[in-house]
Amino acid sequence: MTATTLTVRTDKLVVAWTDGTTATFPTIWLRDNCPSGLHPDTHERLLDLLAIDETPVLISASLDGNTAVLEFADGHISRLPISLMTAHRPGQPAVDAGDVPARLWRADHGAANIARHAAAPILSGELALKNWMQDTAEFGLTIINHLQDRTDAGVEIAELIGFLRATNFGSTFEVVNKPDPNNLAYTSVALPLHTDLPNQEVPPGYQFLHCLANEATGGGSLFADGFAMAVDLRAEDPDAFRLLCDVAIPFRFHDDSADIRVHRPVITLGSKGEVIEIRYNAHLAGIFDMPAEIMPAYYRAYRAYMAKTRDSKYRLTLKLKAGEMVVFDNRRILHGRDSFDPSTGFRHLHGCYVDRGEFFSRLRLLARKIDVAIAS
Amino acid sequence: MTATTLTVRTDKLVVAWTDGTTATFPTIWLRDNCPSGLHPDTHERLLDLLAIDETPVLISASLDGNTAVLEFADGHISRLPISLMTAHRPGQPAVDAGDVPARLWRADHGAANIARHAAAPILSGELALKNWMQDTAEFGLTIINHLQDRTDAGVEIAELIGFLRATNFGSTFEVVNKPDPNNLAYTSVALPLHTDLPNQEVPPGYQFLHCLANEATGGGSLFADGFAMAVDLRAEDPDAFRLLCDVAIPFRFHDDSADIRVHRPVITLGSKGEVIEIRYNAHLAGIFDMPAEIMPAYYRAYRAYMAKTRDSKYRLTLKLKAGEMVVFDNRRILHGRDSFDPSTGFRHLHGCYVDRGEFFSRLRLLARKIDVAIAS
Repeated sequence: MTATTLTVRTDKLVVAWTDGTTATFPTIWLRDNCPSGLHPDTHERLLDLLAIDETPVLISASLDGNTAVLEFADGHISRLPISLMTAHRPGQPAVDAGDVPARLWRADHGAANIARHAAAPILSGELALKNWMQDTAEFGLTIINHLQDRTDAGVEIAELIGFLRATNFGSTFEVVNKPDPNNLAYTSVALPLHTDLPNQEVPPGYQFLHCLANEATGGGSLFADGFAMAVDLRAEDPDAFRLLCDVAIPFRFHDDSADIRVHRPVITLGSKGEVIEIRYNAHLAGIFDMPAEIMPAYYRAYRAYMAKTRDSKYRLTLKLKAGEMVVFDNRRILHGRDSFDPSTGFRHLHGCYVDRGEFFSRLRLLARKIDVAIAS
Repeated sequence: MTATTLTVRTDKLVVAWTDGTTATFPTIWLRDNCPSGLHPDTHERLLDLLAIDETPVLISASLDGNTAVLEFADGHISRLPISLMTAHRPGQPAVDAGDVPARLWRADHGAANIARHAAAPILSGELALKNWMQDTAEFGLTIINHLQDRTDAGVEIAELIGFLRATNFGSTFEVVNKPDPNNLAYTSVALPLHTDLPNQEVPPGYQFLHCLANEATGGGSLFADGFAMAVDLRAEDPDAFRLLCDVAIPFRFHDDSADIRVHRPVITLGSKGEVIEIRYNAHLAGIFDMPAEIMPAYYRAYRAYMAKTRDSKYRLTLKLKAGEMVVFDNRRILHGRDSFDPSTGFRHLHGCYVDRGEFFSRLRLLARKIDVAIAS
């Protein structure tokens, strides 16, 4: 889309586009984003915004091909690409390959329909990597299969995206039953659906659980889409939904070497009111401390969400096999497992995390590279 | 403080304390926090909150020394320590060693009065470690001196707190001028006051800059308390302050290997309306994309904060010497440097970050250990 006419007002430029819409650019925005103000190497902004007027006076504007040529009263001339102005119309945030709408799912999606991607193509080609990441971003849950039988085989795929997110449990962790556990994951008991580490300021983003062995009786994996449960709660009981968004509750993990706490709501909304994060972990919820007046209503709301985590309507179950890795958005997808009998065989998952920041950075770079390759 | 009387209502317990105040505990809270519901090893919550009534009926309550003995209609008997109830009165979040009020400062504090702590005692004793961390949490800025002349000497102190926060620049970074810079820090130009990496979902918490050499002419360090500037702006221009809190702006860093973006406000407030985070980096601010109607007012607000970052009223300047390390809260304290002349000598800082989560976890553990030692 390009511009058809430029209309000069003293303090703004009004651009009419070929699709019949218009956009208004205050003159200070035009000066702030003049390409002359960027460092040639780092592309960081060098312009001193305080060195220009609060409301620069625009005196003329003309089109020179795909560039707007703007003349200001102080003598400055800006040459702004129309493509820049199209992409950054005020009030319309730029299109970003990192904005992947969540495609919600419930049990009727079927465990057999969880997207499966083979490890080898992902390791050897950026298109396969991008396609798998895109699926993972949309559904929040995918499975990689045919991994090599090496402890690091899953981590190596995670590291194609970016560096690992370290936590107080280390950069990688072993889900096996062990003596003196500091976390229920390290026992053989059932783990009800939860998100990991809601006690962190930002809980880990994408979680990778590579199954090295799963020979014990029991130990099936459970998953549910926390966004779908939240959206359904909003439809059924808007007051409960609102309380889960508005009231921060304490989350805490502590052992001999860590005591990590935050107050955060169970449901976090984005700027458009969409659900962008779930923190749900009955084991790590601290002692509720909201005022007594709202506490009974809060408990009702919290229990309503909890009830959904027990509802088979939302739950997919599968038994991971050696050589498979589940990858899921830990800030969206709740995960759990059935109890298992450690006397019947060995169960060993090797896990790690990569945060959302690194994930979407990689997706943007891949999209740019692959889209350029396709276009050329 | 202990309880004097317990008053039973069907759906709540009212506790009168020795200081004359009372607190109300809904019965569901009493059951949710019954000590019988915790895992003996991990202290995680095992109680199934859905297995109890929405409003358990309390029938009697009595004091047994420092324990409240509560009898419910379903036959359950809870023994709740009064200390637990004192510490967790609804509406009064528990006292936490991680809640350190910020002590704001301005230029009149004087660079000479920045708290200085010697490296050796911190490395050898937990009390010195705690005292230095406490100063750093309160003022947001301290200096450690007499570090050994080794590249890792500063990192070793950071790691006494917790693991390093990795970013797309690595786990540690070198502030030296280098060819083909992807960041202005890696040049010799002046860096105006800024916070690092506001383009991250959570910008790095505490920053450690260990000076290994600073022989070049120029290259002085600048610091300002971003919270103090925000609080002063709130007093002088509440509308501008409000816009900086309410309007998320784009921040972005991109090079060949990363493209990391967020929309966030410049000022973030905590639950009590206190300033808890500043994101300010003119170089990494993206192209503003708020609606054109509020854009001129936003620019005025943004420029008002920017003007404070140039105001000598807020600025401390100092020239780091080899063997000194500045440590500061990167989400509060703005830092910068004067330009330097690389032909006159070498300037080399070795840097790393430790996030707020790890910092306050360590402070809680130290406080618990040292307070126990003092009390015993």
